[in-house]
Amino acid sequence: MRRVGIVSAGQTKFTKDDSSIESLLVSSVKPLFDESKDLSQKDIDVVLTSTNSNQKYLANIVSELSGISPRIAHSVESLCNSGTNCIVSAFSYIASGLADVALVVGAEKTDSPGLVLDWDVSRGQYKHPIYWSSLFTSSHMRKYGTTLEDLAYVSAKNHVNGRANPFSYFDRSYSFEDVMASKKLTDNVRLLDCSMPCNGSASILLASEDVANKFKEKPVWITGIGQKSISAGFTKNSDLSSMQSTSIAASDAFSMARCSPREIDVAEVHDAFSICEIMALEDLGLAERGRGAKIVRDLYETGSRKVNPRGGLIGTGHPLGATGIAQTIEAYRQICGESGKRQIDGARTALVHNMSAAATSSTVMVLRS
Amino acid sequence: MRRVGIVSAGQTKFTKDDSSIESLLVSSVKPLFDESKDLSQKDIDVVLTSTNSNQKYLANIVSELSGISPRIAHSVESLCNSGTNCIVSAFSYIASGLADVALVVGAEKTDSPGLVLDWDVSRGQYKHPIYWSSLFTSSHMRKYGTTLEDLAYVSAKNHVNGRANPFSYFDRSYSFEDVMASKKLTDNVRLLDCSMPCNGSASILLASEDVANKFKEKPVWITGIGQKSISAGFTKNSDLSSMQSTSIAASDAFSMARCSPREIDVAEVHDAFSICEIMALEDLGLAERGRGAKIVRDLYETGSRKVNPRGGLIGTGHPLGATGIAQTIEAYRQICGESGKRQIDGARTALVHNMSAAATSSTVMVLRS
Repeated sequence: MRRVGIVSAGQTKFTKDDSSIESLLVSSVKPLFDESKDLSQKDIDVVLTSTNSNQKYLANIVSELSGISPRIAHSVESLCNSGTNCIVSAFSYIASGLADVALVVGAEKTDSPGLVLDWDVSRGQYKHPIYWSSLFTSSHMRKYGTTLEDLAYVSAKNHVNGRANPFSYFDRSYSFEDVMASKKLTDNVRLLDCSMPCNGSASILLASEDVANKFKEKPVWITGIGQKSISAGFTKNSDLSSMQSTSIAASDAFSMARCSPREIDVAEVHDAFSICEIMALEDLGLAERGRGAKIVRDLYETGSRKVNPRGGLIGTGHPLGATGIAQTIEAYRQICGESGKRQIDGARTALVHNMSAAATSSTVMVLRS
Repeated sequence: MRRVGIVSAGQTKFTKDDSSIESLLVSSVKPLFDESKDLSQKDIDVVLTSTNSNQKYLANIVSELSGISPRIAHSVESLCNSGTNCIVSAFSYIASGLADVALVVGAEKTDSPGLVLDWDVSRGQYKHPIYWSSLFTSSHMRKYGTTLEDLAYVSAKNHVNGRANPFSYFDRSYSFEDVMASKKLTDNVRLLDCSMPCNGSASILLASEDVANKFKEKPVWITGIGQKSISAGFTKNSDLSSMQSTSIAASDAFSMARCSPREIDVAEVHDAFSICEIMALEDLGLAERGRGAKIVRDLYETGSRKVNPRGGLIGTGHPLGATGIAQTIEAYRQICGESGKRQIDGARTALVHNMSAAATSSTVMVLRS
């Protein structure tokens, strides 16, 4: 398998403006070219778009609008982890030798048709993701004694981190007290426990080892990949206090990367709701079972940015098809030492966790310098 | 790069019934399992769905409905060549070593949102594919003297071939005279020059060389792949009498397969409209420039099934996301000697050509025994 590196990235500020999906996609490709002065449109073999938009042929459209004439071009959709599915697909084109340079572009609009999975009628009128997150929360509370305060630390921490991210949707921060006082949507999920759908776009460039140095002096290597789909409906989960697809994906990613959770310097974790970050830390092996909330509180109190330095989904907004790419960009920037005020000193090994639909599927990637 | 073989396939009859997209997808997976007795759900690492449907998370839904819990699962969309984009993506997962066994499932409904590319406003009210096919036809007629009779031979030949295909949409055949007499939609495109949107589903199973023999005694190998996207709007084509994306994809596929057009025993060619088959034969190197129509007429008069033995898109119907997969299945069956009444004696090397949106993008694959 050929080594695959990340060599450039671009991103837009997350907003609620009324840009078209095509404009959103193109607007994160331009800064990527600005960053890589030696990159020409002719270098790009593959263009993959990541979105839940109903618009068709978007990979070809963004290619034409960006002056690229790739060999391989198509759209990838898998709800909230479309972005990392797209990155892994681009990885495989390069790792196999079918391509050398792949551009992955993700974007979403606020009113994305991927926000609710209509197919899952097992939940009747309770289709909105708020309801599964509420069940996850109840289950974790019952098993481990997790509290509403524990959840508020996740959101407050990620809002603090998001304030140092110029691409964040929010122009203000929300405190622990704000979260505690925010409107209850269910018994145990408050408005500020939820990530916010928004507009946004993120692009990343992958290259084979042979050519990566042409675009970046020190590429960041994708050394571990794990993916797992358990089902499409969350009722197949036997235990709602953990996310089986995340555990399996993490185990595979660490095994491929030949590293352990202890070596992770920085983690981008899919905090669609507060409870998800606590559960993910446990499922990824970054916290012992039942200790996820404690870890989050320690991070909050010490001001550590180790988990979700960019602000996560809660602190920056969640444009579905762009999220997994924006997470991966943060991991890349941290390893490159390019994260500015968010920089974690000496970050060498990063983890990205991206999931869909009540964790019925997950992607985990390990990135290293 | 690891070798990748085709080891099983399944298909539904093309119809106009009102099945849901989920039912359609699942209905071609079942016969694939029936064919491969040694295949278990647990063997499958990757499930990719190919469709233009607006329904989300279909790869996970079809996995759950089929009892599969894959590592990698997502949907792929690229209008009419979604199917071969999906197959090439599955190929790359296996060729890279990320996976061993991949299921590719395509389906479409008659009223697919992929039938017309709304984005291409360069054509004003003339967005329907009939209009670009009419411009292609005019251009080819001007340059090479192609006639309405030449076009009618394409359709008549493919309707003859389609009669021997149990999965065809049509329950009757249309003769040369029927095509000549059919309703004119433009000056030079008649109703029977067009492929017909319909419901349908097709599934194919790919495996690495290490495990392929477990499922099929003699797998069929994908030895050549070429893909090219020129643009999204057809006005970027400099010359409408040939399809540049097809020429480039063919050249790359033959180069990778280390073979020449002369070695092709059977070709599945994307005859969305009659003119497309004539132009494709020329762009693929299966006919000299300007000789495509002559080749088609010779095939018709001698009863040869070498080009579009399954009936092509015109003779069997065109369920967009399933088409490229159904084409690849025919190439596989022909090489396996499993094409029944359609069998071409001694077929060892096959070509598949699948394209989208006025040939703004094309895929070409070479398959060998």
